[in-house]
Amino acid sequence: MTKSAYAMITVEEALRMVLAQAQPLPPARVKLADALGLALAEDALAQDPMPPFPSAGVDGFAIRVEDGRAPRAFQGEQMAGVVSGLRVAPGGAVRITTGAPVPPGADAIVMVEVAEEVNGQVILRHLPGAGDGIRPVGQDIRAGEVVLSRGTPLGAAEIGLLATIGKGEVLAHPRPRVAVFSTGDELVEVETALAPGKIRDSNRHALMAAVRASGAEPLSLGVARDNPADVEAKIDEALAAADAVISSGGVSMGKLDLVKPLLERRGTIHFGRVVMKPGKPVTFATIGGKPLFALPGFPVSSLVSFELFVRPALRRMAGHQQVTRPRIRVALAHDVQHDAARTEFQRAVAAYEDGQVVARTTGFQGSGRLLSLVGANVLLVLSAGRGDFAKGETVEALVVGEIY
Amino acid sequence: MTKSAYAMITVEEALRMVLAQAQPLPPARVKLADALGLALAEDALAQDPMPPFPSAGVDGFAIRVEDGRAPRAFQGEQMAGVVSGLRVAPGGAVRITTGAPVPPGADAIVMVEVAEEVNGQVILRHLPGAGDGIRPVGQDIRAGEVVLSRGTPLGAAEIGLLATIGKGEVLAHPRPRVAVFSTGDELVEVETALAPGKIRDSNRHALMAAVRASGAEPLSLGVARDNPADVEAKIDEALAAADAVISSGGVSMGKLDLVKPLLERRGTIHFGRVVMKPGKPVTFATIGGKPLFALPGFPVSSLVSFELFVRPALRRMAGHQQVTRPRIRVALAHDVQHDAARTEFQRAVAAYEDGQVVARTTGFQGSGRLLSLVGANVLLVLSAGRGDFAKGETVEALVVGEIY
Repeated sequence: MTKSAYAMITVEEALRMVLAQAQPLPPARVKLADALGLALAEDALAQDPMPPFPSAGVDGFAIRVEDGRAPRAFQGEQMAGVVSGLRVAPGGAVRITTGAPVPPGADAIVMVEVAEEVNGQVILRHLPGAGDGIRPVGQDIRAGEVVLSRGTPLGAAEIGLLATIGKGEVLAHPRPRVAVFSTGDELVEVETALAPGKIRDSNRHALMAAVRASGAEPLSLGVARDNPADVEAKIDEALAAADAVISSGGVSMGKLDLVKPLLERRGTIHFGRVVMKPGKPVTFATIGGKPLFALPGFPVSSLVSFELFVRPALRRMAGHQQVTRPRIRVALAHDVQHDAARTEFQRAVAAYEDGQVVARTTGFQGSGRLLSLVGANVLLVLSAGRGDFAKGETVEALVVGEIY
Repeated sequence: MTKSAYAMITVEEALRMVLAQAQPLPPARVKLADALGLALAEDALAQDPMPPFPSAGVDGFAIRVEDGRAPRAFQGEQMAGVVSGLRVAPGGAVRITTGAPVPPGADAIVMVEVAEEVNGQVILRHLPGAGDGIRPVGQDIRAGEVVLSRGTPLGAAEIGLLATIGKGEVLAHPRPRVAVFSTGDELVEVETALAPGKIRDSNRHALMAAVRASGAEPLSLGVARDNPADVEAKIDEALAAADAVISSGGVSMGKLDLVKPLLERRGTIHFGRVVMKPGKPVTFATIGGKPLFALPGFPVSSLVSFELFVRPALRRMAGHQQVTRPRIRVALAHDVQHDAARTEFQRAVAAYEDGQVVARTTGFQGSGRLLSLVGANVLLVLSAGRGDFAKGETVEALVVGEIY
């Protein structure tokens, strides 16, 4: 009757412990072209206003409103990007293109759709109001304005803003490098034919993809064989190369559980059992401040525990403030069996139906059945402490994909 | 009074035209490590069942249930990944680790938590039922099963499944290569100090990031100056290097509108005006079957028209079946001004409040104000044909980020 040495803790406690250890990586200078998805590690300040000069918001003619609807004397053209030296005289008009500096003297642009030049005269079908068609200095950005504050995740618009204010490089938290290895004498490489007793190593590939999808950089360390020296060598290699380490397999309670004793000797195990299904034996440790996640060997167990604990840690290390997935309420499309002993994360497909989000589980929820994750856009959170759920009940769900 | 030669069409018509032209790129062999986010271009078939042999689902002892609760004679160990040759004899038990092949003769595994070996005898505290603790052949995947069908987007679980069935390479639609350039004599590079009349080229950086975020591969072609030869040279360079082309600027109605006449001469313009705000002059053409998007020059206009038309095209080219964003109903947190003349896409932040999704716009919605996109996770769809909206009304919204 082997008993685990590790206290069984809740999912919430486990996540708190992970986030208490995972710290944002030191900021580094990153080129704008490489910054997509990173978290900004500085306040980004505009030196110049935008627009930096009074700028034509439309194509048309720069005029003086006080001249009324009378035809104007055509004075010439003000293109974008050049200094024409033109000045709109009383009774005059200057052709202007969008984005060009508005010539001194003008106080409006009449749009090309309602004006035209005929034989040196500009005819107006419509008289604009003062300021119409002109983008004043600083309309979009004021000089000295903090346009993006520290911690902002950098998407396309944010990268455009950084370009606008002249930042070709920014200070950002780098992508965490994450070493991934599997453990087990039963594992062979993907393109190997199966021999008796062998299966292919799928976890490493799945976890590396999950690392990449979370915005971090995976490093493949292959497979550790079922002996302490091989596992320790992998951990040493991982710690030397990476900011965080993920292993899978070798953490349940059998004679060959190799990872936990090693982590205990080399660092601190923060937890070794969580009252959840799948993923109960998930283990979290630190060695010299670096987080190590020893995930269960079953494929679904490893990906679900990645989702619940590793992804938030990697997001935190990448400097993000929002590190967990959105949680919503979904209605169950059918009865759902649930064991009250553990919080269970069932894979489901959620969709909008008559204005509410309705979820259907993805069939047999075995810990080995990766097919139960295919197409799943939510993880139903079926709490410990109560049993089966009935069709129509609403439950909490973690949103892991787009809901249509 | 210049009049546009292009019919004004609706957003829906424009999207239909885009999707009628954009075709999935020819499939290519892709290594599993590079396949994240791609759409599978073949049915992926399992040759072997999974598990491929009766496999221990837990650590414990392989036994025969019919022997009852009596102590068993300890026969030895069956590790994962090896062929021990052991066979469970009547009255016998074999220690077994998770994932190991179940020795012939056994019909259940008693878990290590409720059994132990003492001096050559295995003592049971609990007698399992027949089949308990054993994962039968094919429990997760049957031999010959199509585990993933053509078109499936490849996430972490799907990549794990492909590894499981031995596919180190898959046939997938490649990432579209997308050439991006800006047009305008007013544009300078990001790290250049501003001279009179000049602004920095932000669109190219923002659009390249948007291309990358959509799963495609951006190529930077720099800035075309405001003359036909330069624009045509860029388009030729783009067509030679890429599967699709995006330009920004030079498509409104002024004298320097360079892009449309060129596209008309070289290929087919499918539309040149859409009854939307921002983004009215968005232009879509094909040359030799390749899509070209000439987006407006204002930063918000270019990103919103990217979102509405370019992203679906790139997703379609990448072989995805779901190419548009989810649409949901959101309640307005405040009155919203809206011009009935055009369908307007206002940028807003949506959040769950008391079980409903409530949206607040991001302030001044000027076409130049990229700040209106920062933090926006929805685009409100304010339809043409009616004016202002009141606080509390619900409107449709495109989901462009996570909603918490």
